[in-house]
Amino acid sequence: MSKVNIPQLVSILKDILPIGFNALHEPNLKGNELKYVTDCIESGWVSSVGSYVDLFEEKLAEFTGMKKAIVVVNGTAALHMCLKLVGVIENDEVLIPTLTFVATANAVTYCGAIPHFVDSEEESLGIDPIKLDAYLEEITIIRKNECFNKLTGRRIKALVPMHTFGHPVNIELLVKIAEKYHLELVEDAAESLGSYYKGIHTGNFGKIAALSFNGNKIVTTGGGGAILTNDLEIAKMAKHITTTAKIPHKWDFIHDCIGYNYRLPNINAAIGVAQLENIDYFLTSKRKLANQYIDRLSNVQGLSVYKEQEFSESNYWLNTILLDINNIYQRDEILTELNNQGIMSRPVWKSLHTLEMYKDCPRMSLEGAELLEKRIINIPSSVLLGEK
Amino acid sequence: MSKVNIPQLVSILKDILPIGFNALHEPNLKGNELKYVTDCIESGWVSSVGSYVDLFEEKLAEFTGMKKAIVVVNGTAALHMCLKLVGVIENDEVLIPTLTFVATANAVTYCGAIPHFVDSEEESLGIDPIKLDAYLEEITIIRKNECFNKLTGRRIKALVPMHTFGHPVNIELLVKIAEKYHLELVEDAAESLGSYYKGIHTGNFGKIAALSFNGNKIVTTGGGGAILTNDLEIAKMAKHITTTAKIPHKWDFIHDCIGYNYRLPNINAAIGVAQLENIDYFLTSKRKLANQYIDRLSNVQGLSVYKEQEFSESNYWLNTILLDINNIYQRDEILTELNNQGIMSRPVWKSLHTLEMYKDCPRMSLEGAELLEKRIINIPSSVLLGEK
Repeated sequence: MSKVNIPQLVSILKDILPIGFNALHEPNLKGNELKYVTDCIESGWVSSVGSYVDLFEEKLAEFTGMKKAIVVVNGTAALHMCLKLVGVIENDEVLIPTLTFVATANAVTYCGAIPHFVDSEEESLGIDPIKLDAYLEEITIIRKNECFNKLTGRRIKALVPMHTFGHPVNIELLVKIAEKYHLELVEDAAESLGSYYKGIHTGNFGKIAALSFNGNKIVTTGGGGAILTNDLEIAKMAKHITTTAKIPHKWDFIHDCIGYNYRLPNINAAIGVAQLENIDYFLTSKRKLANQYIDRLSNVQGLSVYKEQEFSESNYWLNTILLDINNIYQRDEILTELNNQGIMSRPVWKSLHTLEMYKDCPRMSLEGAELLEKRIINIPSSVLLGEK
Repeated sequence: MSKVNIPQLVSILKDILPIGFNALHEPNLKGNELKYVTDCIESGWVSSVGSYVDLFEEKLAEFTGMKKAIVVVNGTAALHMCLKLVGVIENDEVLIPTLTFVATANAVTYCGAIPHFVDSEEESLGIDPIKLDAYLEEITIIRKNECFNKLTGRRIKALVPMHTFGHPVNIELLVKIAEKYHLELVEDAAESLGSYYKGIHTGNFGKIAALSFNGNKIVTTGGGGAILTNDLEIAKMAKHITTTAKIPHKWDFIHDCIGYNYRLPNINAAIGVAQLENIDYFLTSKRKLANQYIDRLSNVQGLSVYKEQEFSESNYWLNTILLDINNIYQRDEILTELNNQGIMSRPVWKSLHTLEMYKDCPRMSLEGAELLEKRIINIPSSVLLGEK
């Protein structure tokens, strides 16, 4: 029941980290990034069609062990398309954790659908499957193989677990829940490239998944994202609607449905190809850093460092301190002190059900997430920090 | 009343163009593109925040003579945001030409609004203002300073003229029509960077405008676009909703509305900065080529080459052959022959009201556009072709 000794915490972190300011997550662009980008500029192939787009898609499918990857402008766009592709339409509800980045809820809103917030657990920092099952048992009714919310009358179409900070959620249980309630399972794998659940890469468990390659992610393309799927029909449609949905023809402009023009430019894909070449090194280096944090901070009382579950292999995208429940009052003091000392740190996102535009959305009781929100502090996690 | 002598047309075009295959529009990346991109990669600033984003926005505002530019992932996204920012909501109708790229209609659809197709004229290849006025007089009613379609009962919120192939539309008349019918004027300037109407850059006539920097445009960023406005309040909101709408804070994640995450990465903005440095050269070179086409093809009977109106200065993004009305039956034969000869050419877009997903949208009689569609052939227009 001890409080956190903040000077001790700072001292250990400074010992682990290089001297000077340490960002939360900086990209590492020391491989073939410049070479491939130079190739794009010298050849003139910088735009939405080009060999790096195809190559990046192939390499992503290969790395994740999935049949197809379709690259897009960012992770938000990828998730928007995933929801469209599993059939989310206006007035549907979509189950998402309240403890996620706002993009998850925004993507639901772009479809004209309504986020329905569910609770998170400490074990995975993601959706709590046991609580979710009990909740759905109570509030839903199945009619003609579709799930309806008895309270709102709306169809619940999909379930979107998110692998928080790269730590795999308890996806096996969530797959069963999705089956039981006739929900489409869409994995928000924005943060979990390089993360595995029982040896299988995240993204393989639902019908479709979304990745992000924003500047702060383990692999960046400047801005970018991808749709992953093992369903070839969905993959074909994904490619079609993320362009302008034009039917191939030598010159005619026939578009057979609404396209979203979410194509990733070739120059950004070129960076992605170079980044993927180094992902094993990125993962090893980040794991070294995580192990140092876990090991060295075990000497600080009143907190713990999040460690992957035994059946999981996390990419440790963002390392995570969990304050003991008694010490949540110290969170802002610790955040202030760490940031003042040049150790960039941040709390988790504000629970989405507390944001003005989402405060009236349906939700279950969210005590688990609300408590986690007060306990989480992310600390510097860049690849290069594992090199020290 | 002569038909087009196709071998003569091919022969003159071959004489104007360099030997070998000539694309419709290739980017020219021979300035500081590689230097600035190298700077991004070496500094690690590749993503959605960075100095090239700010610089590109400043330079765009300066070049267009507008107060603010906000860069985004592409022209479609820019137009989507423009419509949102002038208040287009679900079930509104938006007046757009049927003769435009499909993205114009798609952006309307993303808002949950309905495209309402209007006719085009030969003088500008854009919206026919005289016909539009007569049509709106007949089908609309003004109630409390808002315009309603008497036939559908829906509000008509905005008018979106598009400057076809960079040739300025008759915007002054359209401004008057927008005022008369209480419509928001949004300029689709995707193709008209560097085009002026009576000495004023396109984009300055409505409340807001959209640019595109796709790979085939006069200035490219790989993929990219921009919102232009002279209204500082709108500009502020544009920047906010094209990000994740986060309120600035050292660490807290408070988002006060739905954000669209349409940010242009710094690496793409870096290319844009280099491109803009050379825009005067691009414009001069394209004008030289256009003048050659206009001059030399005047010897071919049965067609004309589109020439800017006397009060306009076109960027001549895509050069345009107009077949005489009697010769429309020759269009596909000419397209086939030119493409076979390595002279890439294409017809204009298929009128949007003929596409499956837009065939039931409201529309006026569209004879002008339908005839233009049969008459237009675009021919190679890359910057480098003016150098010969």
